[in-house]
Amino acid sequence: MQRLAVIGLGLIGGSLARALRAAGAVAHISGYDPDPSRRDDAQRLCVIDRVCDTPAAAVRDADLVVLSVPVLQTADALVACLPACKLDVVITDVGSTKTSVLEDVKRVCGQLPPWFVAGHPIAGTEKSGIAHSQAELFRRHRVILTPHANQDAAAQSLVTRIWQAAGARVVEMDAHRHDAIFAATSHLPHVLAYSFVDMLARLDDSDEIFRNAGGGFRDFSRIASSSPQMWHDIVRANAHSVGELLDRQIGELQQIRAMLRESRWDELKALFERARSARERYLAQIE
Amino acid sequence: MQRLAVIGLGLIGGSLARALRAAGAVAHISGYDPDPSRRDDAQRLCVIDRVCDTPAAAVRDADLVVLSVPVLQTADALVACLPACKLDVVITDVGSTKTSVLEDVKRVCGQLPPWFVAGHPIAGTEKSGIAHSQAELFRRHRVILTPHANQDAAAQSLVTRIWQAAGARVVEMDAHRHDAIFAATSHLPHVLAYSFVDMLARLDDSDEIFRNAGGGFRDFSRIASSSPQMWHDIVRANAHSVGELLDRQIGELQQIRAMLRESRWDELKALFERARSARERYLAQIE
Repeated sequence: MQRLAVIGLGLIGGSLARALRAAGAVAHISGYDPDPSRRDDAQRLCVIDRVCDTPAAAVRDADLVVLSVPVLQTADALVACLPACKLDVVITDVGSTKTSVLEDVKRVCGQLPPWFVAGHPIAGTEKSGIAHSQAELFRRHRVILTPHANQDAAAQSLVTRIWQAAGARVVEMDAHRHDAIFAATSHLPHVLAYSFVDMLARLDDSDEIFRNAGGGFRDFSRIASSSPQMWHDIVRANAHSVGELLDRQIGELQQIRAMLRESRWDELKALFERARSARERYLAQIE
Repeated sequence: MQRLAVIGLGLIGGSLARALRAAGAVAHISGYDPDPSRRDDAQRLCVIDRVCDTPAAAVRDADLVVLSVPVLQTADALVACLPACKLDVVITDVGSTKTSVLEDVKRVCGQLPPWFVAGHPIAGTEKSGIAHSQAELFRRHRVILTPHANQDAAAQSLVTRIWQAAGARVVEMDAHRHDAIFAATSHLPHVLAYSFVDMLARLDDSDEIFRNAGGGFRDFSRIASSSPQMWHDIVRANAHSVGELLDRQIGELQQIRAMLRESRWDELKALFERARSARERYLAQIE
């Protein structure tokens, strides 16, 4: 693999460029972002060899194109790139929802093209933009690929090698399964964190409240500092799964409200104990 | 101040003992915990000079007694200590709810005694027990004192100096105000985190879900690893404030559910943006 094009110069696209450059895994990196300030950042930080003014210019000679844009912009980015791409190009994405991305690609191309590989790196921070990118972001993190029926094995293999060069561990998963799982572990917690902070911000004494926040608040609400555009796209693209889990969450909170109202303290404590032991079990599994 | 007694050898009591010893602020530290394994830990870790088998033995010669027990055990701890205390003892606590503690102390003593100083260090981790205690836990953190009408100034001054010796910044607040604020910044997020993890744990595919959790999940759910006993006590002792905020939170989540159902995506994005900017504003204030 000689030439990489990154469409969308955010935290993920920028970090992948840095990681591959640090690993010496690519000969040349071009890039494009619709936001001129991000293009300037990319130029200034020397993360990208050639920053282009159009997606077409960025992808012209690329062997691999990485679409690292908010998921609902995948189709438009693909449409903008495709006419300028080489015939044997491989295109991949980094979106947090995989069913919607595969549907959008299919809609643009008429069918799912062998050269499109859907991917999702399980890494990131609440910080947005290429200015926060870091070469080590993916090291020892997983990247999930969700191969489709028409998938070309060589294309998938190229994308796998690229992520491995960035230090990641690549695993495969069914796209629908992926979306159901990440609705639970990632999309719903973002909705809950945004909702919690917004609820506090709307209180009359929100200033005094925020000024008294401690470490628990900080960690619990960290993901509410994530990009609203990106998470709007994710929740919208996976609205069905997120909505179902949100119903369950509301139901459980209503149960807790009833425990408080009816002084069912033993049940409340049992719930806290179940949650704690579930989390400890999970921590033991992954650490 | 010569002699300190710590009743309740958990993270907070143990960390305060370590901090004061490191600062050379006390001549002797005695301690008691109803849990023999914690008494053993305290002995083994040399955090406490004299580990006692009864609260009465621990407080016998103490100038200052720190009650570091789950908040609903405050009254029992006080009853167990009082008969053995010196006449000029000062007693303080570290509980996360201050109205309930002051009410319990008043109930035990008939009125609020001048020598009782209600306090709350805004520090801690999700880890419990003296084995996780650390001398630096309170450094540059706030300790809130909620003085009452009968408060002796010298007693409050002693408690203030002790916390300052541990590296903390001491501020005053009204007890009711304290409980309303910490219901929002601390108690409700704990309920939400426990509830979220418990909801996931009850799903059929919870194992696969937890195995796919990433950094966002980890931080968001961290406080769900906190002591269930301690948080049961806090939520129960501050049930009115927590319940009111929980109602608001459920209401806001129902609004979000309606946005998803009715495709009101602009409203969802605006909510995310409000939350993000509120959190960023708050981070700017405290950093």
